[in-house]
Amino acid sequence: MRRMHLNAFLMGVGHHEAAWRHPRTEPSRITDVRHFQHLARVAERGALDSVFLADTLALAGKVRYNALGGLEPLTLLSALAVVTERIGLIATVSTTYNEPFHVARKFASLDHISGGRAGWNIVTSAGEAEARNFGIERPAHTERYARAAEFVDVVTKLWDSWEDGAILRERHTGVYADTDRIHPVDHAGTYFRVRGPLNAPRPPQGHPVLVQAGSSEDGKRFAARYAEAVFTAQQTLEEARAFYADLKGRLAAHGRRPEELLILPGIVPIIGSTEREARRLEKELEELTVPEYGVAQVSTMLGVDLTGHPLDEPLPELSGATEGQQSRARLVLDLARRDGLTLRQLIARLAGGRGHRVVAGTPEQIADQLEEWFTGGAADGFNIMPPILPGGLEDFVDHVIPELRIRGLFRYEYEGRTLRDHYGLARPVARHVPQAVAV
Amino acid sequence: MRRMHLNAFLMGVGHHEAAWRHPRTEPSRITDVRHFQHLARVAERGALDSVFLADTLALAGKVRYNALGGLEPLTLLSALAVVTERIGLIATVSTTYNEPFHVARKFASLDHISGGRAGWNIVTSAGEAEARNFGIERPAHTERYARAAEFVDVVTKLWDSWEDGAILRERHTGVYADTDRIHPVDHAGTYFRVRGPLNAPRPPQGHPVLVQAGSSEDGKRFAARYAEAVFTAQQTLEEARAFYADLKGRLAAHGRRPEELLILPGIVPIIGSTEREARRLEKELEELTVPEYGVAQVSTMLGVDLTGHPLDEPLPELSGATEGQQSRARLVLDLARRDGLTLRQLIARLAGGRGHRVVAGTPEQIADQLEEWFTGGAADGFNIMPPILPGGLEDFVDHVIPELRIRGLFRYEYEGRTLRDHYGLARPVARHVPQAVAV
Repeated sequence: MRRMHLNAFLMGVGHHEAAWRHPRTEPSRITDVRHFQHLARVAERGALDSVFLADTLALAGKVRYNALGGLEPLTLLSALAVVTERIGLIATVSTTYNEPFHVARKFASLDHISGGRAGWNIVTSAGEAEARNFGIERPAHTERYARAAEFVDVVTKLWDSWEDGAILRERHTGVYADTDRIHPVDHAGTYFRVRGPLNAPRPPQGHPVLVQAGSSEDGKRFAARYAEAVFTAQQTLEEARAFYADLKGRLAAHGRRPEELLILPGIVPIIGSTEREARRLEKELEELTVPEYGVAQVSTMLGVDLTGHPLDEPLPELSGATEGQQSRARLVLDLARRDGLTLRQLIARLAGGRGHRVVAGTPEQIADQLEEWFTGGAADGFNIMPPILPGGLEDFVDHVIPELRIRGLFRYEYEGRTLRDHYGLARPVARHVPQAVAV
Repeated sequence: MRRMHLNAFLMGVGHHEAAWRHPRTEPSRITDVRHFQHLARVAERGALDSVFLADTLALAGKVRYNALGGLEPLTLLSALAVVTERIGLIATVSTTYNEPFHVARKFASLDHISGGRAGWNIVTSAGEAEARNFGIERPAHTERYARAAEFVDVVTKLWDSWEDGAILRERHTGVYADTDRIHPVDHAGTYFRVRGPLNAPRPPQGHPVLVQAGSSEDGKRFAARYAEAVFTAQQTLEEARAFYADLKGRLAAHGRRPEELLILPGIVPIIGSTEREARRLEKELEELTVPEYGVAQVSTMLGVDLTGHPLDEPLPELSGATEGQQSRARLVLDLARRDGLTLRQLIARLAGGRGHRVVAGTPEQIADQLEEWFTGGAADGFNIMPPILPGGLEDFVDHVIPELRIRGLFRYEYEGRTLRDHYGLARPVARHVPQAVAV
């Protein structure tokens, strides 16, 4: 039976931009590793597939009104790996401002430390502010994706540079490794020249799971070729179905089957024991939003400075969104036009999840929504984005997960040990292994 | 009273190149995080100042005969931070193949995760093999140090970009941070252009401790200006005294006092309950060395390929060592000439600690050696390099540390919480803080 895949997308003290002001959070904990260890344990108690950490390589100036500036994802996940046993650990790392050797090695290291639970969310870093922290002009969208493709090729080659059986540890002969089974990479491409081999044995999963989150045309092309899970922002069932069909339909051209790529839309569940309680929490958070912050957020998403635009009027006519954030900009514009929102209303709609779908209701109502998308050809599961943390995750695990289990939609226990096991993905064969051996 | 500083320099299953073949080690544990967690706890039980991890960004081809290819230091230290309370955590990170923004952020993150216990061992990566993993020609020695200096400047600016009191968390007004106290870096230099600010609050230590290990002229110049601890390889008391006096004497020119830089030579203690037991362990390890590996090691250290040179003859005349490893090459040549060693004897002398001093004896004899250097103007403490792990570290903590304590040379308990506390180093004032406030 087909089961949902669920990730706990962790962010500070919650995804809602006003989470840090809510009495159920403790904003001082955004740099406290114990906060995140607690969240990882809660998610593991719910048998979720993974915890997932986003990342941006710049502060981007909005810290006046939001609890930004926290721990770096890979350093943090390593600290979570050692207090959990089964849950997957997915970190976002940019291909635009990194080197493949470092990235291959850090994920190999995390995969060894966690016993095969690492996943890499591949991003190309759309922001201007990020480029300025690395002294370069922000590369164009297509260029970033071309670099990303080569980057991933090099990283997977490095992961494959040690065959699985290369380590012999023959104490009596003094031969530690069979160096005929450790291969140089000798990559010489457009963006990278990397000799290899990696200075780490092949990761337990072969390759840590490749995740991707872009929904632009370049993003979808990239995902169809490389990604094993895609995190996407979709506001309506119709759009989500179209995205799902589009992306799954692209896999065959790469010799891939539909189940080799999981599509996981983000969702912000605002949970109450009654609908009224859920609506009250939603309202509380809305009232805590700071208009200046919302305007800055919407401006970033659209690539247009809306400072000074009247809050109670619709958006102005926009000549076109910035190329860097094009898929998110389109989503935001569609949302504003479709529902005829003023700027203030748009800010409120985006405050919960930056463009991801927000659903407020009882555990049963949340489960209904998840079930509808999951059985309706729109999702293989979801990226759960609790509005407040840890409360929102605890509520999800304690109340929504049991409802999904009763409906036969989610596992009661982990059936495997690695993130690949949880996602139902095969362990890749190393490319140097002769086919006769590999089969 | 002046007390020694001691770091546990951890490396796989031991510093001796044949450690993995010795019956007291388990070589499968070199990628097992629990092995390192055990070591960190043992070192903390001994109240050592820190655990220290070296690093190289290449496999460098010698894995046939040694247990190479392990976990990446920063990922690993984060996993050690969360199972320890007090011990410092020092990771080696290269300035030649990294970006300051990433390095500043990862050490800030480790410092937050560990509550102020992070240290950065700054290396410039002398090896050719490392350059080939990053697609560039290895920069010349002086160029690498020029880049390192600018790199450290940028990293410390990024750490200072948030003033200590910048986070307000005013829930009632919605102001999270005082952005007048979060500053851009706006660095534009020879090697880097970095806008800043960092996307992480100022580290608990202000700056994680800056450590350095080069002993060349460029290395010493760099250390005198930036380093707060220097790990050095010195074979004789006389050489160590000269190095100590030289480096301490350079500090005044930078407005620094002698106690602001700790000099910590490496030492490989081969410990036995009796001298005979220690000699037997030394002999066992020597007999397990693989000549091919030793020849490759000596060749790398000297920058000259000695493959095929008769093992039982002295070294050939060498026209001069490679520029990349010049201080280590000089040390090896001096050692071979001074003691009239054949190549085989030289390999045995280097097998324990790659040029670091090896001392075999009882706990009292080891303590004598440490005391002599510490009181004789040669060291502020030591980088302890156990030949086998965990046994060699357990023996040091259980038998040598008590002897040092009885002699009044080492602490019984931690007196502070941060690595700066243990090392007796002041917390740096952020450079943006007006002096009136800082004082």
